[in-house]
Amino acid sequence: MTMTTDLPVSPAVRRSAELEAQLARDPGRFRVLTGDRPTGALHLGHYFGTLHNRVRLQDLGVDVFVLIADYQVLTDRDVAERLNEHVEGLLLDYLAIGIDPARATVFNHSAVPALNQLLLPFLSLVSVAELGRNPTVKDEIAHSRQSAVSGLMYTYPVHQAADILFCKGNLVPVGQDQLPHLELTRTVARRFNERYGNVFPEPDALLSAAPLLLGTDATKMSKSRGNAIALGADADETARLVRGATTDAERHITYEPERRPGVSSLVLLAALCLDRDPHAVAEEIGDGGAAGLKRTVTEAVNTAMAPIRARRAEYAQDMGYVRGVLRAGNERANAVAEATLEEVREAMGMFR
Amino acid sequence: MTMTTDLPVSPAVRRSAELEAQLARDPGRFRVLTGDRPTGALHLGHYFGTLHNRVRLQDLGVDVFVLIADYQVLTDRDVAERLNEHVEGLLLDYLAIGIDPARATVFNHSAVPALNQLLLPFLSLVSVAELGRNPTVKDEIAHSRQSAVSGLMYTYPVHQAADILFCKGNLVPVGQDQLPHLELTRTVARRFNERYGNVFPEPDALLSAAPLLLGTDATKMSKSRGNAIALGADADETARLVRGATTDAERHITYEPERRPGVSSLVLLAALCLDRDPHAVAEEIGDGGAAGLKRTVTEAVNTAMAPIRARRAEYAQDMGYVRGVLRAGNERANAVAEATLEEVREAMGMFR
Repeated sequence: MTMTTDLPVSPAVRRSAELEAQLARDPGRFRVLTGDRPTGALHLGHYFGTLHNRVRLQDLGVDVFVLIADYQVLTDRDVAERLNEHVEGLLLDYLAIGIDPARATVFNHSAVPALNQLLLPFLSLVSVAELGRNPTVKDEIAHSRQSAVSGLMYTYPVHQAADILFCKGNLVPVGQDQLPHLELTRTVARRFNERYGNVFPEPDALLSAAPLLLGTDATKMSKSRGNAIALGADADETARLVRGATTDAERHITYEPERRPGVSSLVLLAALCLDRDPHAVAEEIGDGGAAGLKRTVTEAVNTAMAPIRARRAEYAQDMGYVRGVLRAGNERANAVAEATLEEVREAMGMFR
Repeated sequence: MTMTTDLPVSPAVRRSAELEAQLARDPGRFRVLTGDRPTGALHLGHYFGTLHNRVRLQDLGVDVFVLIADYQVLTDRDVAERLNEHVEGLLLDYLAIGIDPARATVFNHSAVPALNQLLLPFLSLVSVAELGRNPTVKDEIAHSRQSAVSGLMYTYPVHQAADILFCKGNLVPVGQDQLPHLELTRTVARRFNERYGNVFPEPDALLSAAPLLLGTDATKMSKSRGNAIALGADADETARLVRGATTDAERHITYEPERRPGVSSLVLLAALCLDRDPHAVAEEIGDGGAAGLKRTVTEAVNTAMAPIRARRAEYAQDMGYVRGVLRAGNERANAVAEATLEEVREAMGMFR
């Protein structure tokens, strides 16, 4: 599928294109850190937005670390509910989409103390003013359910620097809105290296080219809004959700995201599943109207997701294996984190 | 030596008196956390202010943890200089005054990842507003050498909660100015227990009854002002420092801390070393003047410190042993921290 845009190309976009060229030539020199908070089921927005890209990078030969950010669940809520269920759901999703535990490392925050310890030296490299200025933190503070912002939310970008730098990640797939976070990680790496000697890479952002999928109600797709088709949903559930999706009164189907967000997001979803251009998909449906559109979408999703769903159901029969994947990933993450922490202690002159 | 005071007795002072009675009856039910930042040599102010009390508690049969807070050196400076030298100096001081590694646990922050990990769940229990309100942090921010306050300084009271709670310390010897910090630790323990179940004690403050020793220039005694007699100083160095101490023009020696701070601090130092009442010491010197006072002080300090200095010099001949004391302490602290972290993970429902 080709996406065209008329926007001027930003330096970050240009840099990402260079990085893609390097990835094609020499994938082995990259280590990628990505991850999710275990707050609910992953959905098709995640799949086409980031999950698919992780598998692509892994299959290129990149060393991929996938973080289940369990402590970060507490940044915008008091207690992490059904945490084990959500963690297991993420593991099933990862395995189902093709994350290969023999090549990628899946781990969770709370199991890797040496990673978390990096928060301390890193906090010494960042001022309170810088923490308060971070636009994503500002935004999350504005939308937070908590009346009082927690210290964990406030220090979150520094913890993220620890996530990326503990494994010397040099490439981080991000959306445009996460660029300021990554900039803080680069600042932490640079300041550490200046003060104590060269230990960390300054990681690059790999901007996602993925278009934005809306939820079935034509607003932002979100785990918590009930407008998302989960990766683990079955064919009937998918049909039901698509049937209830918001469209509009125009019979002729077109792909016009600005003017017709509901219809266009459904067209886009079908196009992503079919790996085709959304304009061509819309044209083919033509006067089929909302009903025709929804038939096309349901079939496209169910066909594209069938093998993923089958693998997910298979893995769900063997949760002992699935939990073992995380245990093994944590073991590897701990070994990597301890080696990095040891370098950090030595560089800082800490007693050893 | 008896100290009298006309101040009204605060609840914290009353509580400390109760705790002293319990300590005498049942020392085994207490675990104490104390410590120092490795920023320079410990001096007589530390000795009579806190170090002496640690040994007293240890000898009563209390389980004493002594923290060398190496990361916290970075709260008010960019780089920790001569860190290993300062850590070794602290170890020599501890051993010299009678900290017994068979009974007490000496450890350093950077060597105990599971302790540091507690910072993350604890940060989720504290609001940014609470962090900003802490008077000691406010004060340290006001006096900081850094133009911009670091994230490490800002989160310091939460890290201190981790120090105290990782070993389930239930008693913390503090000065009046540290009560707000301990109050935050109590808040963290209480909120954790309320949200996740009972894991932590709410530690009590044991207020120090120790009087304030001034430096030889009659200002606050401080490692960095050159007005302190280090524990490791020898007899000649002591004589030289006392000889240069600030006194006043009145020949007759009295103990009047408010009106005659320089003279009275020297009288107090002699009294502490002689374990006598400062008024009686002053009376005995009487018309001996500043010279007589300084002779008395020099002799009292050198006599009281002689066995400590001798032990310090002896241990300094065997730095392999001294460093081994910290290694063994770190091993014990890690075992304790990992057990607590495991309880915390279980209480919070984290994947294990």
